[in-house]
Amino acid sequence: MLEQLKEEVYRANMMLKEHNLVILTWGNVSGIDANHEYVVIKPSGVEYDKLTPESMVVVNLRGEVVEGDLKPSSDTPTHIELYKTYKEIGGVCHTHSLYATSFAQCSTQSVNIPALGTTHADYFDGAIPCTRALKKKEIRSDYEKNTGLVIVETLEKEKLSPEQMPAVLVKSHGPFTFGKNAAEAVEHSIILEEVAHLAANSILLTGVMSLGIIGYKMQDELLRKHFDRKHGANAYYGQTNKK
Amino acid sequence: MLEQLKEEVYRANMMLKEHNLVILTWGNVSGIDANHEYVVIKPSGVEYDKLTPESMVVVNLRGEVVEGDLKPSSDTPTHIELYKTYKEIGGVCHTHSLYATSFAQCSTQSVNIPALGTTHADYFDGAIPCTRALKKKEIRSDYEKNTGLVIVETLEKEKLSPEQMPAVLVKSHGPFTFGKNAAEAVEHSIILEEVAHLAANSILLTGVMSLGIIGYKMQDELLRKHFDRKHGANAYYGQTNKK
Amino acid sequence: MLEQLKEEVYRANMMLKEHNLVILTWGNVSGIDANHEYVVIKPSGVEYDKLTPESMVVVNLRGEVVEGDLKPSSDTPTHIELYKTYKEIGGVCHTHSLYATSFAQCSTQSVNIPALGTTHADYFDGAIPCTRALKKKEIRSDYEKNTGLVIVETLEKEKLSPEQMPAVLVKSHGPFTFGKNAAEAVEHSIILEEVAHLAANSILLTGVMSLGIIGYKMQDELLRKHFDRKHGANAYYGQTNKK
Amino acid sequence: MLEQLKEEVYRANMMLKEHNLVILTWGNVSGIDANHEYVVIKPSGVEYDKLTPESMVVVNLRGEVVEGDLKPSSDTPTHIELYKTYKEIGGVCHTHSLYATSFAQCSTQSVNIPALGTTHADYFDGAIPCTRALKKKEIRSDYEKNTGLVIVETLEKEKLSPEQMPAVLVKSHGPFTFGKNAAEAVEHSIILEEVAHLAANSILLTGVMSLGIIGYKMQDELLRKHFDRKHGANAYYGQTNKK
Repeated sequence: MLEQLKEEVYRANMMLKEHNLVILTWGNVSGIDANHEYVVIKPSGVEYDKLTPESMVVVNLRGEVVEGDLKPSSDTPTHIELYKTYKEIGGVCHTHSLYATSFAQCSTQSVNIPALGTTHADYFDGAIPCTRALKKKEIRSDYEKNTGLVIVETLEKEKLSPEQMPAVLVKSHGPFTFGKNAAEAVEHSIILEEVAHLAANSILLTGVMSLGIIGYKMQDELLRKHFDRKHGANAYYGQTNKK
Repeated sequence: MLEQLKEEVYRANMMLKEHNLVILTWGNVSGIDANHEYVVIKPSGVEYDKLTPESMVVVNLRGEVVEGDLKPSSDTPTHIELYKTYKEIGGVCHTHSLYATSFAQCSTQSVNIPALGTTHADYFDGAIPCTRALKKKEIRSDYEKNTGLVIVETLEKEKLSPEQMPAVLVKSHGPFTFGKNAAEAVEHSIILEEVAHLAANSILLTGVMSLGIIGYKMQDELLRKHFDRKHGANAYYGQTNKK
Repeated sequence: MLEQLKEEVYRANMMLKEHNLVILTWGNVSGIDANHEYVVIKPSGVEYDKLTPESMVVVNLRGEVVEGDLKPSSDTPTHIELYKTYKEIGGVCHTHSLYATSFAQCSTQSVNIPALGTTHADYFDGAIPCTRALKKKEIRSDYEKNTGLVIVETLEKEKLSPEQMPAVLVKSHGPFTFGKNAAEAVEHSIILEEVAHLAANSILLTGVMSLGIIGYKMQDELLRKHFDRKHGANAYYGQTNKK
Repeated sequence: MLEQLKEEVYRANMMLKEHNLVILTWGNVSGIDANHEYVVIKPSGVEYDKLTPESMVVVNLRGEVVEGDLKPSSDTPTHIELYKTYKEIGGVCHTHSLYATSFAQCSTQSVNIPALGTTHADYFDGAIPCTRALKKKEIRSDYEKNTGLVIVETLEKEKLSPEQMPAVLVKSHGPFTFGKNAAEAVEHSIILEEVAHLAANSILLTGVMSLGIIGYKMQDELLRKHFDRKHGANAYYGQTNKK
C-alpha cells in the first residue's frame, strides 16, 4: 500500500544524511497520505544505508502498525499529534541538527531563535519558538505524544499556523519541522539549521562586541602595503602576464 | 544573444555551489555585456543542478526581460542599480554566505568588518562597510532597487570605488560583491567569506580574552612528558625504523 | 592468531578517519578477545592508509607483544588498565577529537561536559566527567598506565559503570571511550564529539546572552517584506509555474 | 636541475589544498637543496590545479631566479631569511589557515597560542609565539625580508630552536612553519591549525564559563527518560532483534 508515499518518505529521509543534518541512525521523517489516514515513517534505529522504500512503516492515526516488518520510529506519536491537529501539513521532520539543537539546549529557560535577517524572514514569520519544558508527569507517561502536544501548544500560544512557522524547537531536545509534504519538511530543517547557525554567530559577535572592543584594527601602514602590492601602481604579486 | 556571456554567468553561478557559499536555490550572479546595455542573470528560485547557460535571463537596464523563458532573480533591480552607477564593474554577486551574513545581522547598528590582517588587506582597502538600515518607505516600494541605491550611498559616503572595496554588506540581509566580470565578483564573495570568518574568530577571541583569562596553561610537567616522548633523547612514540 | 578480532579492530580504527575524529596518525582503537587475555591494538605512529588487519599488534595484559612486527600504540598501557578493571568492556577508543578535547583543555580545573539535552541523555547517564590532573610523579613514571588508573578513579568516584558512562575526558589531554566491542567504542567517540559540540555551542550562547543582549531583532517592516515576497498573496519570488 | 626537490616541493604545495589550509592561490611551500644553496618555491599567484613540478621556481640565497619561467612567490625573501639563519631546516610553509591566522589577528597586542593540552605538547615545546608588529620602516622597504627577520628575532628572544618550535605567527598576518623538509613543514602547518582550533575553543569556553553559568543542566526526569528508553530494562528504542 502507499508505494509512492513510501518512496517519497524514503527519499526525504535520505536527504537528512546528504545534507549533514544527522549522524548514525538519528533523525526521522514522515508523510501522510492524501486521505489523512495513514502515516508513513522511518523505522526506529535503522542505519540510513540499510533503509529502502519497502522498509518504511505504515501506521494509522492511533499509532498502530498497519504495514511493515519493523518498529516505527520511537517519535511516531509526536508526528501523529501534529498530523491530527494540522490538516494542512503533509510531512514532518525531526533531527538533532547542530545549531538548531544548540538553541534548544540553551539556558534553563526556553530561548527562541530571534529573527535577525532576511534569510530568516524568507521562511519564518517571526522568531522561531522554543516550547516550555515538559512537566514531570508529561515525561513519565505518553512522553512522545506529549512532545507533540507541547509543539501544538507553542504554535497556538503564538497564534501561528504551521505555514507561518514551519519549525518549533522542543526544549532540551531539538527541532521538529513541517511542510506540505515530506520533502518540504526536510527542506525546512535544512533552512532552519542555516538560520540557527547565522543567529548563533550574530548573537555571539554582538554580545562579545558589546564588551567594548569594537574599533581595534590592523596598522594602516601594513594595510597599505598589502593592498598596494596586489593592486597598486607598482604591484608585484602574481605573474605579470596575468595582470 | 550574448551566448558567451551567458556561459560565463552560468559558470560563475555554479561556482557559488562548488565553494559552499549557497544552499538550495539561494544566491545569484550577473554579468553585463561589453556595451553596458544588457545584464545576464540567474533565473529566480531555480535549483542549481537544473541551471544551464540557456536558462540565464537577459534584461535591459530598465529591468525588462529581453530574452529568456524564466523570471529573472528577484534581486535583479539591485544588480541594475550597481551597473548603472559603476561603469567599471562587469559582474555582481549576491549570497547569504555564513560569516559575511552573520556580520550583516549583528546588532541593531550597522557593523563593518574591520581590517584585522593582511588577508583582508590583500583585497579590501579598509573596513568592509555595512549599509544603514533601509527606511520603511524604501522597504515598502521599489525595495530591491533601493537596496542597490543604499549600497551605492554607502560606498560614496566612504569615498570608496568598487575596485577599492569590492564588497558591501546590506544591513540585516547579506553581502553583495562586484568585479570586472562575473567570475571575479564570485571570487570576491569567496574571499569575503574567508575574511569575515577570520574577523569573527579574532573578535570573539579578543573579546573573551579581555575578560582576563589570558595566561592559563597546561602543567609544565605534562608538556615536558609529551614533547619528550616524541622528540626527546628517549623518545618512544612511533616505530623506531621511522625516526 | 585472533584474525577476526584483528579485522574488527582494523575496521574500527579506519572508522576514526572516515568520521573525521583524527588527523595524520592520531588516535587508536583496541579490542580484547573473548577470553579476556589478549588485546589487539593499532601500531604506534603508522599512517591510516598504511594500516592493514595484519599490522594490528597483539599484546597480553602485562603489555608484552605476543604477535606483530610493529610497536603497539604508546597508549597501550592505558587501554590495558581499562580492560583489567572492567570485564564488561570489549573495546577502547582514544582520539583528540576537536570538541571533546576542547573541553578537556578548558580552564585549569577539571570541566565536565554537562548534560544539556536528550542527545546527551540518549547515551550518557549524567555529565561526562573529566579526570583530575595527574600528579607530577604520575606523569614522570608509568604515565600511560597512570592515565588508565585516573580514568578508573574518576568513574569510581562518580559511582558510574562504563555502560552508564562510556566516555571520560582525561584532563589537558582528550577523551577515552569504551564499548562492548571496538566498533561500539568508536561509535561512542563519534557521539561524544557531537554531544561536546552541542554543549560548547549551548554554553557559549547561554553565557553571551547572559550579557543582556537577548531581544534584539530585525525591523518588522523588513521581515514582513521578505516573508510576503515569498509567501504572501502577491508573492513574486521564484517561477510562477512552480508555485 | 634539482628535479627531485621540485617534485617534493610540488607535492608539499598540493598538500595545502588537500588539507584545506588554503583557498584560491593562497599559501606557499619551499624546500632547500642538500648543499643549502638553492631554494625551490611555488610561483606567485598561480592556481593549484595548474601547478606542476616543472613550474616550481629555483632561486639562490640572494633571491635571484636561477631556473624557471615564472616569478617566485612574493614571500620568497621571508623563506630565504629562515634558511640563511637555520641550517637545520629543509622546508618552510606559509598559509593563512583559519584558526592560526585568527590568533595572529587577535588584539592589537601579540597573542601567543598557549600550550593547553597534550596535542600541543606533542609538537611544540611551549606557547607558539607571535611576532611583534613590524615597524613602519620595516613595512615600507624590504617588507618580506623583514618578515623573515622578525620571525628569527621572535625565536631567538624565546631561546627556541626551530625544532623546539616549528611554527611562528607573524602579527596581523599569519603562520610560518618549518621542518626538516617541505613535507614536514606542511605537516607542522596541519598540526598548528588543529592546535589553534583547539586552543580557540578552549579559551572561548573557559572565558564564557567564567561569567558564572557553569552548572546549568537539563531536567533529571528528562535525562532518566531518554537514557532508559534506549538502555533501561524496558527500552523501546530501535528494533528488538538488534538488541
